[in-house]
Amino acid sequence: MTISVTDIKFDEQGLVPTIVQDARTLKVLMLAYMNAESVNRTLKTNETWFWSRSRHELWHKGDTSGATQRVIETRLDCDHDALVMLVEPMGPTCHTGATSCFQRQVEEVEIDDSL
Amino acid sequence: MTISVTDIKFDEQGLVPTIVQDARTLKVLMLAYMNAESVNRTLKTNETWFWSRSRHELWHKGDTSGATQRVIETRLDCDHDALVMLVEPMGPTCHTGATSCFQRQVEEVEIDDSL
Repeated sequence: MTISVTDIKFDEQGLVPTIVQDARTLKVLMLAYMNAESVNRTLKTNETWFWSRSRHELWHKGDTSGATQRVIETRLDCDHDALVMLVEPMGPTCHTGATSCFQRQVEEVEIDDSL
Repeated sequence: MTISVTDIKFDEQGLVPTIVQDARTLKVLMLAYMNAESVNRTLKTNETWFWSRSRHELWHKGDTSGATQRVIETRLDCDHDALVMLVEPMGPTCHTGATSCFQRQVEEVEIDDSL
């Protein structure tokens, strides 16, 4: 199916949440945000580019760590406002050195009923 | 690791994006949003509850379709602002009847360079 970047529904900040999943292990590696330019760069280069909401700049994943992500497949969801990218990671995804950013297993939760 | 709902960093709308993944196949099924109350209900009941950003209400996944999601494991990411829930789905996830909401494979993209 041919889609255009204009098919993606970006949010009011111009961003689309992108789930990055290891194409081989299927482990979810990270959740990050793309704007139209980072989607374009990602699709042109087959390496992931994101928009940093804290630094307000584009970032090429792996630029400093070397752990770039080669994009194998991109999927768009039914309401066109989220992406899954299946990637081949060239190193650990997390800045902590872990394979995935989702390392903390919530084993027990103290529920705050005042919420 | 014991965490509390108060460890989760909700965004300015009070929401946390939640990636729902099939615990058996590891397919990413959907991305949806939880507020503190839906996290609480999900953890109390072991079935997913979300916040609908369009209808402005809590929804219990599967209430109308029967396709509830039994939560097997919950993971929090390194900056505490995204969740992965590994679930056992009791039916198709997508309102279209598909297993996953991410059915549209982006095979070719017409890049709009004016963006």
